[in-house]
Amino acid sequence: MTLTIGVDVGGTKVAGGVVDDTGKVLVQARRDTPADDVGKTRDVIIELVTELATGHDIGAVGIGAAGWIDASRSTVLFAPNLAWRDEPLREYVSTATGLPVIVENDGNVAAWAEFRYGAARDADDSMVMFTIGTGVGGGIVLGGELLRGANGIAAELGHMLTVPDGHQCGCGRLGCIEQYASGSALVRFARAGARQEPQRATALLELAGGDAEAVTGPMVTAAAQAGDPISAEAFAQIGRWLGTSLADMAQILDPQVLVVGGGVVEAGDLLLGPTRRSFTDALAQRSRLAVAEVRPAELGNTAGVIGAADLARRL
Amino acid sequence: MTLTIGVDVGGTKVAGGVVDDTGKVLVQARRDTPADDVGKTRDVIIELVTELATGHDIGAVGIGAAGWIDASRSTVLFAPNLAWRDEPLREYVSTATGLPVIVENDGNVAAWAEFRYGAARDADDSMVMFTIGTGVGGGIVLGGELLRGANGIAAELGHMLTVPDGHQCGCGRLGCIEQYASGSALVRFARAGARQEPQRATALLELAGGDAEAVTGPMVTAAAQAGDPISAEAFAQIGRWLGTSLADMAQILDPQVLVVGGGVVEAGDLLLGPTRRSFTDALAQRSRLAVAEVRPAELGNTAGVIGAADLARRL
Amino acid sequence: MTLTIGVDVGGTKVAGGVVDDTGKVLVQARRDTPADDVGKTRDVIIELVTELATGHDIGAVGIGAAGWIDASRSTVLFAPNLAWRDEPLREYVSTATGLPVIVENDGNVAAWAEFRYGAARDADDSMVMFTIGTGVGGGIVLGGELLRGANGIAAELGHMLTVPDGHQCGCGRLGCIEQYASGSALVRFARAGARQEPQRATALLELAGGDAEAVTGPMVTAAAQAGDPISAEAFAQIGRWLGTSLADMAQILDPQVLVVGGGVVEAGDLLLGPTRRSFTDALAQRSRLAVAEVRPAELGNTAGVIGAADLARRL
Amino acid sequence: MTLTIGVDVGGTKVAGGVVDDTGKVLVQARRDTPADDVGKTRDVIIELVTELATGHDIGAVGIGAAGWIDASRSTVLFAPNLAWRDEPLREYVSTATGLPVIVENDGNVAAWAEFRYGAARDADDSMVMFTIGTGVGGGIVLGGELLRGANGIAAELGHMLTVPDGHQCGCGRLGCIEQYASGSALVRFARAGARQEPQRATALLELAGGDAEAVTGPMVTAAAQAGDPISAEAFAQIGRWLGTSLADMAQILDPQVLVVGGGVVEAGDLLLGPTRRSFTDALAQRSRLAVAEVRPAELGNTAGVIGAADLARRL
Repeated sequence: MTLTIGVDVGGTKVAGGVVDDTGKVLVQARRDTPADDVGKTRDVIIELVTELATGHDIGAVGIGAAGWIDASRSTVLFAPNLAWRDEPLREYVSTATGLPVIVENDGNVAAWAEFRYGAARDADDSMVMFTIGTGVGGGIVLGGELLRGANGIAAELGHMLTVPDGHQCGCGRLGCIEQYASGSALVRFARAGARQEPQRATALLELAGGDAEAVTGPMVTAAAQAGDPISAEAFAQIGRWLGTSLADMAQILDPQVLVVGGGVVEAGDLLLGPTRRSFTDALAQRSRLAVAEVRPAELGNTAGVIGAADLARRL
Repeated sequence: MTLTIGVDVGGTKVAGGVVDDTGKVLVQARRDTPADDVGKTRDVIIELVTELATGHDIGAVGIGAAGWIDASRSTVLFAPNLAWRDEPLREYVSTATGLPVIVENDGNVAAWAEFRYGAARDADDSMVMFTIGTGVGGGIVLGGELLRGANGIAAELGHMLTVPDGHQCGCGRLGCIEQYASGSALVRFARAGARQEPQRATALLELAGGDAEAVTGPMVTAAAQAGDPISAEAFAQIGRWLGTSLADMAQILDPQVLVVGGGVVEAGDLLLGPTRRSFTDALAQRSRLAVAEVRPAELGNTAGVIGAADLARRL
Repeated sequence: MTLTIGVDVGGTKVAGGVVDDTGKVLVQARRDTPADDVGKTRDVIIELVTELATGHDIGAVGIGAAGWIDASRSTVLFAPNLAWRDEPLREYVSTATGLPVIVENDGNVAAWAEFRYGAARDADDSMVMFTIGTGVGGGIVLGGELLRGANGIAAELGHMLTVPDGHQCGCGRLGCIEQYASGSALVRFARAGARQEPQRATALLELAGGDAEAVTGPMVTAAAQAGDPISAEAFAQIGRWLGTSLADMAQILDPQVLVVGGGVVEAGDLLLGPTRRSFTDALAQRSRLAVAEVRPAELGNTAGVIGAADLARRL
Repeated sequence: MTLTIGVDVGGTKVAGGVVDDTGKVLVQARRDTPADDVGKTRDVIIELVTELATGHDIGAVGIGAAGWIDASRSTVLFAPNLAWRDEPLREYVSTATGLPVIVENDGNVAAWAEFRYGAARDADDSMVMFTIGTGVGGGIVLGGELLRGANGIAAELGHMLTVPDGHQCGCGRLGCIEQYASGSALVRFARAGARQEPQRATALLELAGGDAEAVTGPMVTAAAQAGDPISAEAFAQIGRWLGTSLADMAQILDPQVLVVGGGVVEAGDLLLGPTRRSFTDALAQRSRLAVAEVRPAELGNTAGVIGAADLARRL
């Protein structure tokens, strides 16, 4: 059986795996990302692919990376966490490895994995996925295919307008959903709450050594699971906004399934409870109509490897 | 050559036409809509189709109507301006006329017409259209096909959230784009301006017989064209919000073309100028990337007939 | 002992009373308001004062009315619910009755009554009151005196900006607190909820004969008291915004007491519970500092008569 | 003639002056603020007062400082830029110098100076001042006296709610005016603009050595004065929000004069033009009524010394 390799290039780690045609990861490997060095990042990817390919019958390589990818899925136009600018990644890796290569946005890759083998595997036509990590990413499947857009940059869901004149986004605009429903927003809300009402954030502050500014995302999750009110409220805040955006997606695209993935979704009902309540409220006028379910992603942080490998298989 | 019939069922008029395979309307006819009477509205449609079919070789009938249509394009689930509730319109008309029938949402029908024969006829894959009438409707074409959604109700663009806790929408939610970028919003903004600052709305108030409450949409357009500042500002307000929603569409779907249609777009640059400025501002962070053009619709109020007929041809 | 007369001119009723120097109402009388007829409204007031004055030693007359009153407290510049425009009410009534007269805004009059004899009678210096009726009115006492402003129009609290680009206000601006925390807003929120989710508004819809559009303010109160979820949520919505505005008042004026009056406050904790939670949340950063209590008004709809009479006593 | 000393304690400098009864500063002196050291800051103030007092007939000392001051004007409860917590400053300085001392919030002190000797010196009763520095401060004069509030903390104008769910404020709340109309907001808006549209920020970026993150407030002012579009738009953004808050102040307090002070107002019409337009728009419904003028402060950064000295004179 022909296998494919999936590579997930993050800001700190490059993960790769050999994947079969059922979405199963047979072998995995990982490297640190030399994020500031364009050439070294490229070399690390090539090394990793070469290592993984050894001893397997590999048909193609898929690479997922945060950033804007050109419409031909060859070049990384811009990557927020890496030094790449107009990086012809497909050509480099293909030349070095002798394998066909496809490059895809990380949100798209994760969505594809969940559509094929994860939370939306029962769907045959359409799904929309929000990936809630440090930022907010997205992926859209319609007609059984990943939506890439006329210019290759569809599904930039993190920059939908949510609060006019709201919190400043790194993209320049005020009030993008990324400022209200990301892991960074979770931490910001939790820190503010802990500064304001420390007596309601004792569990959280204990984890942070008493310093609200030292609070991290995993601490908010742990404290919320232990019943810390400020931490639970921080999840409720991001869930409220996420539910609203999911409702917009249901109204715009009416997909079969809506999926919420990314590291933050590991908090489970702490996030999904408020998200679903807000989603239902926002759709109340549609109560007579069927609408997609909101489900958590199932593949965790291997979605990137699986999705990239599966897209490579379709080359 | 086989022809098809398109029917556009509005709250006050039912319009129909015989259309050829180049989108040309050969014959037209019109009736008043007996909107309160389910049976009579149905009878009027059947009469109109029968009349139009006489003497032509008709292959199929397409009907566009405001409202939610089921996924099989047979039944009108709910129509805001008509008495229909779960109306099996396809079956009635098909049985009465002996022709294949398809029923489609009016925003979708207009978008299809513009994609095939109008403002986006150079696009072969994708477009998004906002129809700015009394309310805000929408239509989405992706992969060369109308997006219908898993439950038949995609492209409900009028109910995207625009201002959290904003103006009450008829749908129950606060702050839908329909409350900020529709013809009704235009009139509301113009009336408020004329009450507040009558000295800057003299042209508008003259048209309205001196009574701000008597202002209508066509008056706002006429006054704005004559240089009335309050009327121009009302267009700028709806354009500002429309541009923001178009930018969201570019980020979500990245279509080849963005189209603005509906009666209000007849005001031309009064609407499109502020719309494009707001669109560009909202996308400033993407300035290095290609993005769809924003164009006015070209088919005016025959889009409904043409689009419905063309969809029928594809049955 | 010298007594004074207080008159409360509303859109539907003119109420009057003879009041002693402890704020006690000795005699009361009422007339319908002929609101469309400037002259008749004036005559009704004069008749009422004359009737009340008979057999009492009256020193002065105070008149409270909705609208803008000039800085000398003589002329009603504009009254939203009456036909008065630049009406020299003081002169008319004084000439007709031979008594000194003062005219004052109704929100100011009610605030003064609560400051002297009601919810803030333990305060000797300052209080701010929001009156939640059909609209939102206000009154401010600072330094033991009613704040009238340089142009006579201070304490227009109903038109503080609450939601930028929010619901259209009758005053022309978008998003005034009057559109979010008034009795009208309560009804609007309850109707929308009942339309959207009728199954959660059964008690409310029963009172309204099954028609969401027939819902009135008293019905929302009655249904909420009976446990109707949609009705309780409508109170929570207006309380949320009211609490935010009260917090702004605490930060701007830091008064001894904050009072919430008007017909809607008769709902008690249904309104005050959410109001106080929102107030506390908004002031969380001040948790180490003392801040005014939020109290319900105590004088109900006699506040207008008592306050007007007491202001007249100070002439 | 008896003179008084005013001291202005900032985060980086302590400024002092001997002031006569016409508001004229006869002698000035300055020291660096040892901001992290409670005891040393106190000592610097005492040294400065002692030095200034030498050779003058000094009646009292007034000290202005950013932070919350208790109602008796003796103790600094909390100072955001200094290490003081419940610092009994009045007692320390009075004991050390043998002079009567009053401690007052810096926004109040500046407002008092402008009311007595600056932009509002023609007013005899009331004014409201916004101080636009790094943050947003305020001061209110009513009935010819500084409004101190029941708990000593009135006029916290920087934390009025402006955008619900808006940009995170250091106080914990989302959307305070300080996040939209301060010098920090000016810089944030300008940096975002320069990142997004560098070609429209050439003058600004030149001043910042090509690095948007290196932009400072004075650079934005200089570039805007040189015609840089992005810099001018940053002023327009903060002016828009400031005008809205000034309109709220006119509606709540109806003062004789509205003043805008602080370092940012040195940009003149770049700030005041958009501010006045927004103010007028927000008050459009009141166009028939008189309303306070919006004026720039006149005393610049000596307002603190003059106001503190003048308040001391009134002890």
